[in-house]
Amino acid sequence: MARVYNFSAGPAMLPEPVLAQARDEMLDWQGSGMCVAEMSHRGKEFMSIAAQAEADLRELMSIPDNYKVLFLQGGASSQFTAIPMNLLHGGESADYISTGSWSKKAIAEARRYCGVHIAATTEDTKFTRAPAQAELDLSADASYVHYTPNETIQGVEFSDIPETNGKPLVADMSSTILSRPIDVSKYGLIYAGAQKNIGPAGLTIVIVREDLIGQPINGTPTMLDYKVQADNDSMYNTPPTYAWYLAGLVFQWLKGKGGLSAMGEINARKAKRLYDCVDASSFYQNPVDPTSRSWMNVPFTLASADLDETFLKEAKAAGLTTLKGHRSVGGMRASIYNAMPEEGVEALVSFMHEFERKNG
Amino acid sequence: MARVYNFSAGPAMLPEPVLAQARDEMLDWQGSGMCVAEMSHRGKEFMSIAAQAEADLRELMSIPDNYKVLFLQGGASSQFTAIPMNLLHGGESADYISTGSWSKKAIAEARRYCGVHIAATTEDTKFTRAPAQAELDLSADASYVHYTPNETIQGVEFSDIPETNGKPLVADMSSTILSRPIDVSKYGLIYAGAQKNIGPAGLTIVIVREDLIGQPINGTPTMLDYKVQADNDSMYNTPPTYAWYLAGLVFQWLKGKGGLSAMGEINARKAKRLYDCVDASSFYQNPVDPTSRSWMNVPFTLASADLDETFLKEAKAAGLTTLKGHRSVGGMRASIYNAMPEEGVEALVSFMHEFERKNG
Repeated sequence: MARVYNFSAGPAMLPEPVLAQARDEMLDWQGSGMCVAEMSHRGKEFMSIAAQAEADLRELMSIPDNYKVLFLQGGASSQFTAIPMNLLHGGESADYISTGSWSKKAIAEARRYCGVHIAATTEDTKFTRAPAQAELDLSADASYVHYTPNETIQGVEFSDIPETNGKPLVADMSSTILSRPIDVSKYGLIYAGAQKNIGPAGLTIVIVREDLIGQPINGTPTMLDYKVQADNDSMYNTPPTYAWYLAGLVFQWLKGKGGLSAMGEINARKAKRLYDCVDASSFYQNPVDPTSRSWMNVPFTLASADLDETFLKEAKAAGLTTLKGHRSVGGMRASIYNAMPEEGVEALVSFMHEFERKNG
Repeated sequence: MARVYNFSAGPAMLPEPVLAQARDEMLDWQGSGMCVAEMSHRGKEFMSIAAQAEADLRELMSIPDNYKVLFLQGGASSQFTAIPMNLLHGGESADYISTGSWSKKAIAEARRYCGVHIAATTEDTKFTRAPAQAELDLSADASYVHYTPNETIQGVEFSDIPETNGKPLVADMSSTILSRPIDVSKYGLIYAGAQKNIGPAGLTIVIVREDLIGQPINGTPTMLDYKVQADNDSMYNTPPTYAWYLAGLVFQWLKGKGGLSAMGEINARKAKRLYDCVDASSFYQNPVDPTSRSWMNVPFTLASADLDETFLKEAKAAGLTTLKGHRSVGGMRASIYNAMPEEGVEALVSFMHEFERKNG
């Protein structure tokens, strides 16, 4: 079968040139006679791959020198635990902004380790917007402030970075990282599961200001201690080497595309094209406040939920897959991460027009 | 370059037919138009891959129905934490058998959560043997007994399963799993990092008797709670999907080779061939008690450490790589996991004979 346009929210599409290179190197990476997955992580071949990936990520994101970049396992869900364990610093509470399903998960896990003060929540409006700065009720004794810049399920995104009056700002950027330029210096810690904009599932990136690590609470698992991971260059134990390699290929691909400024322009165009299609129609609807709409995840409903099954079936036949919305929201969701080409969005828009014409 | 015989202790060689299939499916898994790494873990394609891999592993290892099989992240090092967290069951101590570098790591982490009683240690003889059953000093109040059937660094292996008088036996089988038939019913919990006999780094298998889970200590990270992972079929969050898929291909390959009985015969032959070569020579030496020698990791020293560099250089030129011993032991180490073909061992033995002839 031809390659499909896969709108999965994650694991998501990977750039085809990255897959082609991985395929070509599968039995022999650059004359080594080995697949990257077979290499000792302590050998010079993999060490060079790992170092290049970190250097490319630092360049792409302009990561300041006083930040550590960690290549970890366990997904964002493991970071939900690691963040309070590492960043409470003797404090007893943290501020969390609640904007959807993923911030709620982060909050539930943090509550097992500290007091959580909800600095703002948009649950009363069904998580269809990001709160404004003026709505934030930050507490004086919070050790840090956590938020989710992009809520993958609700398709809600912050357009500005919250101001925290000097408190370390912590962001779950699983669905935002690498989608556009980000000012890392505004953050204390950024974390992201790889399976959306970075690479395959099983790798988690943590970017953390180095003065914030080294004071974990008692009982922090060694593997969740950022200082241990930083001191060991993310090789306290065997890292997910093949995922790290694929992420490195994605970073090279992004550099070839012109970096994050170029990606930001492309992603803005892709999102606008899709929201314009939804807004120009009374057949499709998106419930999110236009100022808070995600560039990465575009949920939409059809005029009648009875048409959902037909829409999904016909879309799949047209090579447009994984469009079913999350069960908590219903309808459809088109996730359009970096690896989704503009042609894929164009194909979806054409399909949506045709589907509306036949069923509207 | 031609494929090399790679004697890495992990990440280790993968079967060439597995790599070839992964290569061929990289851009399109079975007509799906997607790489497995791009698939939603909730979609029917990946769900079928995941279920097949578990079914094949259960068949290969004859895993009884009252055991859960978990596909996790974080390596054996994360299990060093998870085991006391999940298996103390209100108790305050556990028995650990200390036979080398990896049991010491497991012990150090467990001590952060409970009392550790050393039921036996062979450190006085530099970890060159496994203790006999009669040497085990098991304590009445231990919640479980932990041991390391194969010490990867020292090349030491238990020839028998310790008898624990009904206490759950916990085994770090990272270097033993799938190398031969294992009676799973003798164990409370088996865990193994994938990067030796299972697949790529970034996947960890846990096989646990289901009556042992569901009583984690306070503060156990949700991701380390076996009950949560079991109740969610290892998909509480996004699992390492591509690694899971590659492991599944390895399981299929093992079935095609005749399963674990056949692999056990092959592995016994490979190990005997190499130890015979070492023992027949006064140029090479292995310090391990012959009854405790590992089938998987064969450390050996040369007559003079001054020859180490030449040996490694000439071996590499002959397509025999990653033979350097662990820095704590010195000399050489040949790891000969399932994916190392008998031809690879034959090539190493020939090289060793020739090297001895020239330098002995």
